Amino acid sequence: MKYKATVTIKLKKGVLNPEGRTIKRALEFLGYEVEDVNTYKMIDLILNGESEEEVYKKVEEMCQKLLANPVIHDYRIKVERL
Amino acid sequence: MKYKATVTIKLKKGVLNPEGRTIKRALEFLGYEVEDVNTYKMIDLILNGESEEEVYKKVEEMCQKLLANPVIHDYRIKVERL
Amino acid sequence: MKYKATVTIKLKKGVLNPEGRTIKRALEFLGYEVEDVNTYKMIDLILNGESEEEVYKKVEEMCQKLLANPVIHDYRIKVERL
Amino acid sequence: MKYKATVTIKLKKGVLNPEGRTIKRALEFLGYEVEDVNTYKMIDLILNGESEEEVYKKVEEMCQKLLANPVIHDYRIKVERL
Repeated sequence: MKYKATVTIKLKKGVLNPEGRTIKRALEFLGYEVEDVNTYKMIDLILNGESEEEVYKKVEEMCQKLLANPVIHDYRIKVERL
Repeated sequence: MKYKATVTIKLKKGVLNPEGRTIKRALEFLGYEVEDVNTYKMIDLILNGESEEEVYKKVEEMCQKLLANPVIHDYRIKVERL
Repeated sequence: MKYKATVTIKLKKGVLNPEGRTIKRALEFLGYEVEDVNTYKMIDLILNGESEEEVYKKVEEMCQKLLANPVIHDYRIKVERL
Repeated sequence: MKYKATVTIKLKKGVLNPEGRTIKRALEFLGYEVEDVNTYKMIDLILNGESEEEVYKKVEEMCQKLLANPVIHDYRIKVERL
């Protein structure tokens, strides 16, 4: 069965995000009032698997071995069957 | 009223994403079979507004003036009231 | 022999860089006058090879097969012996 | 007088760089042997100033106020007169 896994990789709470801060200041320069800006990254994976649980575990391994830095990043995984 | 707007910025269909390709190859090196990998960027904005429509329009302007390159990026905006 | 190859990956001239534009506006908001801002990415590779020419060719292949999108990116490679 | 300031923003030594790790694995999948891969970001600024020292100080302020996260990033600034 085919699945789509979506990985959200954010800086951990409390880790300053210079990109979000820069966007906020730039929007203010253009005259927009914005209370908060945060940026993060998404990775969509299409892969085969036997169940949502099995795919979730595999993608969790991928995050640990490759995609995220656990010291500064939080990641969240969403799996849906296609 | 306070709103959260989430902007998704992706490379347009047909524009090669070297980062997705690199992640796919790296996962294959680690022994994972993956059919497709795509990466994209998200921006969360917290801002005040009068209605969902008004916030949507304001954020669309921000994308055009600042956040996206319309030649290579597609963007999608989701607004929710907080 | 060991070499360090440095790959510079920039958006091609004429391809709008929203990140540079955002930084420019943010700096202006903070009171700095800046004429132009550009951002780009660097990749340092440490690898063995037989000559600078051979390493250069190998890294050029890596750019074509993996690291850059030739439609939107220019890349430059610098090789030095360690 | 006009100056070009180049800011190099790297993850601090000891902070794992998932992007470099991913590129290394992907190159290995394609059959290349690479000892180490590191990625980092550059920002070129064109701006007016009175001296190299004055421009350096201004750009250092920009890094502190906007461009870098001092907890995870090291930055280096190079100034040259145009």
